[in-house]
Amino acid sequence: MLAGNSIGKEFTVTSFGESHGKVVGVVVDGCPAGLPLSEEDIQVELDRRIPAQPKIVSGRVEKDIAKILSGVFNGYTTGAPIVIMVENKETRSSDYEAIKDLPRPSHSDYPARIKYGGFNDYRGGGRFSGRVTVALIMAGAIAKKLLSRFDVDVLAYTRAIGKVQMEGQLSFEEIRKNRYKAATRCPDLACAERMEQAIVDIRKEGDSLGGVVECVALNMPVGVGEPLFDSLDADLAKALFGVPAVKAVEFGLGFSLAELKGSESNDPYILQSGRVATSTDNAGGILGGLSNGMPIMVRVAIKPTPSIAKEQKTVNLSTMEEAILSVKGRHDPCVVPKAVPAIEAAVAITLADHMIRSGVIPRVLKEQ
Amino acid sequence: MLAGNSIGKEFTVTSFGESHGKVVGVVVDGCPAGLPLSEEDIQVELDRRIPAQPKIVSGRVEKDIAKILSGVFNGYTTGAPIVIMVENKETRSSDYEAIKDLPRPSHSDYPARIKYGGFNDYRGGGRFSGRVTVALIMAGAIAKKLLSRFDVDVLAYTRAIGKVQMEGQLSFEEIRKNRYKAATRCPDLACAERMEQAIVDIRKEGDSLGGVVECVALNMPVGVGEPLFDSLDADLAKALFGVPAVKAVEFGLGFSLAELKGSESNDPYILQSGRVATSTDNAGGILGGLSNGMPIMVRVAIKPTPSIAKEQKTVNLSTMEEAILSVKGRHDPCVVPKAVPAIEAAVAITLADHMIRSGVIPRVLKEQ
Amino acid sequence: MLAGNSIGKEFTVTSFGESHGKVVGVVVDGCPAGLPLSEEDIQVELDRRIPAQPKIVSGRVEKDIAKILSGVFNGYTTGAPIVIMVENKETRSSDYEAIKDLPRPSHSDYPARIKYGGFNDYRGGGRFSGRVTVALIMAGAIAKKLLSRFDVDVLAYTRAIGKVQMEGQLSFEEIRKNRYKAATRCPDLACAERMEQAIVDIRKEGDSLGGVVECVALNMPVGVGEPLFDSLDADLAKALFGVPAVKAVEFGLGFSLAELKGSESNDPYILQSGRVATSTDNAGGILGGLSNGMPIMVRVAIKPTPSIAKEQKTVNLSTMEEAILSVKGRHDPCVVPKAVPAIEAAVAITLADHMIRSGVIPRVLKEQ
Amino acid sequence: MLAGNSIGKEFTVTSFGESHGKVVGVVVDGCPAGLPLSEEDIQVELDRRIPAQPKIVSGRVEKDIAKILSGVFNGYTTGAPIVIMVENKETRSSDYEAIKDLPRPSHSDYPARIKYGGFNDYRGGGRFSGRVTVALIMAGAIAKKLLSRFDVDVLAYTRAIGKVQMEGQLSFEEIRKNRYKAATRCPDLACAERMEQAIVDIRKEGDSLGGVVECVALNMPVGVGEPLFDSLDADLAKALFGVPAVKAVEFGLGFSLAELKGSESNDPYILQSGRVATSTDNAGGILGGLSNGMPIMVRVAIKPTPSIAKEQKTVNLSTMEEAILSVKGRHDPCVVPKAVPAIEAAVAITLADHMIRSGVIPRVLKEQ
Repeated sequence: MLAGNSIGKEFTVTSFGESHGKVVGVVVDGCPAGLPLSEEDIQVELDRRIPAQPKIVSGRVEKDIAKILSGVFNGYTTGAPIVIMVENKETRSSDYEAIKDLPRPSHSDYPARIKYGGFNDYRGGGRFSGRVTVALIMAGAIAKKLLSRFDVDVLAYTRAIGKVQMEGQLSFEEIRKNRYKAATRCPDLACAERMEQAIVDIRKEGDSLGGVVECVALNMPVGVGEPLFDSLDADLAKALFGVPAVKAVEFGLGFSLAELKGSESNDPYILQSGRVATSTDNAGGILGGLSNGMPIMVRVAIKPTPSIAKEQKTVNLSTMEEAILSVKGRHDPCVVPKAVPAIEAAVAITLADHMIRSGVIPRVLKEQ
Repeated sequence: MLAGNSIGKEFTVTSFGESHGKVVGVVVDGCPAGLPLSEEDIQVELDRRIPAQPKIVSGRVEKDIAKILSGVFNGYTTGAPIVIMVENKETRSSDYEAIKDLPRPSHSDYPARIKYGGFNDYRGGGRFSGRVTVALIMAGAIAKKLLSRFDVDVLAYTRAIGKVQMEGQLSFEEIRKNRYKAATRCPDLACAERMEQAIVDIRKEGDSLGGVVECVALNMPVGVGEPLFDSLDADLAKALFGVPAVKAVEFGLGFSLAELKGSESNDPYILQSGRVATSTDNAGGILGGLSNGMPIMVRVAIKPTPSIAKEQKTVNLSTMEEAILSVKGRHDPCVVPKAVPAIEAAVAITLADHMIRSGVIPRVLKEQ
Repeated sequence: MLAGNSIGKEFTVTSFGESHGKVVGVVVDGCPAGLPLSEEDIQVELDRRIPAQPKIVSGRVEKDIAKILSGVFNGYTTGAPIVIMVENKETRSSDYEAIKDLPRPSHSDYPARIKYGGFNDYRGGGRFSGRVTVALIMAGAIAKKLLSRFDVDVLAYTRAIGKVQMEGQLSFEEIRKNRYKAATRCPDLACAERMEQAIVDIRKEGDSLGGVVECVALNMPVGVGEPLFDSLDADLAKALFGVPAVKAVEFGLGFSLAELKGSESNDPYILQSGRVATSTDNAGGILGGLSNGMPIMVRVAIKPTPSIAKEQKTVNLSTMEEAILSVKGRHDPCVVPKAVPAIEAAVAITLADHMIRSGVIPRVLKEQ
Repeated sequence: MLAGNSIGKEFTVTSFGESHGKVVGVVVDGCPAGLPLSEEDIQVELDRRIPAQPKIVSGRVEKDIAKILSGVFNGYTTGAPIVIMVENKETRSSDYEAIKDLPRPSHSDYPARIKYGGFNDYRGGGRFSGRVTVALIMAGAIAKKLLSRFDVDVLAYTRAIGKVQMEGQLSFEEIRKNRYKAATRCPDLACAERMEQAIVDIRKEGDSLGGVVECVALNMPVGVGEPLFDSLDADLAKALFGVPAVKAVEFGLGFSLAELKGSESNDPYILQSGRVATSTDNAGGILGGLSNGMPIMVRVAIKPTPSIAKEQKTVNLSTMEEAILSVKGRHDPCVVPKAVPAIEAAVAITLADHMIRSGVIPRVLKEQ
């Protein structure tokens, strides 16, 4: 396949649109019929992308209004493809014309230009912009609503911004309640404040920060995933790397497992209220590519925003001479907070897809 | 799709076989016509799975002989599906009957039993056994041969076993030359010896170790990858999680990027012999899901072998009572060395697939 | 996959929208970068769906205006997904409410209601309406423009309406020039008039007619198609059955071949201007699922419009009693003319897809 | 995707092997766990390919023995990929060397040579040989056994050979009982004899015949199929064109529908034993791409065997001069009888795939 803008084999999400084009949108094909769905449901999730406090995000006002164009009738999904779009409003394309030939370091500008023979829409990163996560979040809103019918809950939150890390582990209840309260999307509200300060500080430096986002999925049934290759962790990882700026993915204890002994890392089986459970969750809820009934726990690293005001070396692709670049325009000094709902969406979409594949979610939902 | 035993959209690998069944094998569909290919080419890679020194692997003698059954004519690939198989010889299935109802902690036993209603072949882990990497390695042998026609070289090696870590960075030339010399597949031969000792020690404890495998791919052309969702890192990660025991994947500096500033993590563009390059490779050769022409650098965490002789808690799934299990049978105290060629194969298969998708590799190769 | 609204593996067309919903539209993913494309290009093809003479079509005024929402920048395709939509304007949904429980014979009403648990949008047939061919035609417009860059020409036309059949074979030049001149889309203009009269007559009876559409594709390169299963005829047939009301597909002499001897049906090879050709084209340009360089020739049967004013038997699905139905509303007494551009689109999309798969069409087009 | 040797999205069949290679085989991925399956089940269907009476088939003795290599454990399918193979025994490859440069008219020889740059295995047609239907039939045996668990019965039979046509319609019971009794696979045994004579006669002429095969599927549930593009008729047609020599496919009355009025072709709904049915089945059991609960009825045209003893014109592809060819070797003067079980398999595979997609067939079967 030439292009790869679809993900999911049963709950199939096709993303379209560019940062500075007319729209950003998504087609969801394969959503079961009979799910109550309104534009409100989508809008709630979409609004989580932009924190109320503008001081840690870019100056761009991106109030996005989600419109459902097909696939919903009388308030329920019909089984037909669902299309949801937002219009792109304020886009100052002229910001980008000036640096067309000067690829921004650690952005997709250079390889994209080579790949598409210069025909790609380079304005604001085009298809590679973080703005396309709008599509992911809209599809994720459907996935989350679908999952909630089957008691599965997906909760992403900020674990670290730069060197400010959340210590310890909050209860799932606290995470659910608090994760979107602070602009930095850290459910430990004291830590959230320190993260915010770190972002404010780095902005003044003309520099940027990255961070770590963690996501848990609760109440997953046992045996979801399609090994060997479409195992649950494999497909989650694939979806997560579809979120711009993600550079690493780990499940459970992740890289730390490499340093443990088997007797330390194994999760012993126990009986809990008559059901099989494990006393620890070092595996992050996935064994052999299948959910094991414990909370799924995944962590991703987000790299620092590559657009920085500081001067950087680059190469002028027209003249083929080395050059100096200072990225102008309004850029988020840290995209981690915006990434949180996108991570949540990527996980929810993958879980919904696999719960349909496993036959747990049927093709037509019963009316409630 | 119910099952997920195929990977790759152009160079499509379908795995089949079970640990204690008749065969383990693979279908490769989509390999260009005109590639010289012999059983020798496959055997060389397959032999890398079993180190000559038996002291760090399980007692099982698994000398696997690869046979090509279709898709090759007069010494060249024909464009038709290539099937390669090995027969399973020595398998003591009785080892497993005893513990049929006692799922081994951190193995797939429990979720697999639930998923397949108890019909799955549980002997030796069945489809979930590390033995299925034989199929991956055989397909990888074709991918590597194909890539080498386009100067792309894929080199995996052990970076850490338990707490023994390789320090510093060897040259690519040293890695290429030495990575399969030591039984532990660490190209730093002094470090390799310490790793071997660590495995010997842990075996005596009746325990196990995990580790870290690193893989570099050299000479990748610019612009390979199909964003948004089939981006190069996403598909590499997916393939890598298809290798049993992988729990984490990171590119370039990976999780370390989360703690850096943009000015530290960005890779500045420079001119090198008249070509665009970057002076650092913190991104691991991938930007926006596209190769940028720098070495691709990926690192995976392998968890400790879950089969250990030490006693562990489990639950008897027939009686639904808690129980104690001590895994008998011959098991590798550390699967990292066996994982190295599998990681190399997973990366090679994904790169071959994407180089065909990008149009860099044509459908029919020219005779050389 | 739950739903099947996408077709094509490289040039991938995803259809969305309902007859009486807000929009009908399409996503084309995998179109090479660098193809000049304007809304004008789309509109020209779309206008062919509605003949200028209204007397043989339904009274509905369906002037559709195509809008390109993404994937085109500075007048060229970018390699990103192309989204094109039309808004649905005049739709009298009340026409359909009355017969919600009375499935129209030989329509999808009954099986669709069962399949989607009653959640499907039944107004005007919803997803099953002939109106969704608008999406196909818009995607086909891109495919045709792409094919024309490689000299491939796709020409569909009406061969028969009811019992009025076009005799003999016109030259390809005449077909190209005349096929959209008459409202019935028959390039034999005398015959076209008799067809028109047949439609006018049947409308008076409150009845309907079907017919036969033929499509030729000229200048196809040799060797396009991916046997065994994605052979060129298999994928053409699949796409053609995606056009509502198609009930039969044949290539070359089709069913007539069953009555011939091998010595009569075989197409002998000859040299023509130094190139290999065949002296007859009984195979319709496809051998073993591969194009053989001769004109591709395919013929489809279109069933009579099932919506007729005459009284018919049906079953009331709420009361489960037999009932009598007379379909009200404005319906085309013959959909063959509207099907012609849809057939042309289905063929063009499939050929474009396979020419990319074969490597004949590259990922980035050269500027002309 | 470069190659197209897989079909089905849930019940996925991958074909491999060549006419004169080592094996012909198939991978079935996605078969539900818990289906009793033995080599006997496969062999029964495979034996139907070769009629007991050798006088109407080629002299080749092709007694194929099916071996199951994976995916079955303790007599039940496990949910893992099922691999079945037969070895190729008697193959006189020298028959083909002589005519390597002389493409047989109406065979794939010429376009295959161009497509694969001459690397394809041309012996006996290689991948394009009718012999690959062995793989289809073996996968079909699984599909049929699976369908029978859900009361669906697939019955193919010869309707015409050359100009000898079966008149009238036998009962489904007669078809089921008699279809494999006569060597020509015509359930009307008197007609079968006339067909046999026609084949004997044409063989004497050094010529060949084609014919028509019909296939019915009984007891299909309502609402199976995934419109728009993966509609049931579309996917059946695609699978049927995957059987070599098929040139046309029609459902229900097929091409005859084009000449009828709507009032004649529509199938009125009636109540039958309290269930919705239609009083006629002109649509062949499919409406809007969905099964409507009536018998599915499909008909295909098989072209005459292109390999004939009579002299034919061709072009020598090495010297690029016109030449005369007389195809030597043992060839069936009519492949229709061998095509019957392949057609049955193609239909069964598609129905099994779609019944899984629709959720009618679950992932794990209950023990009976």
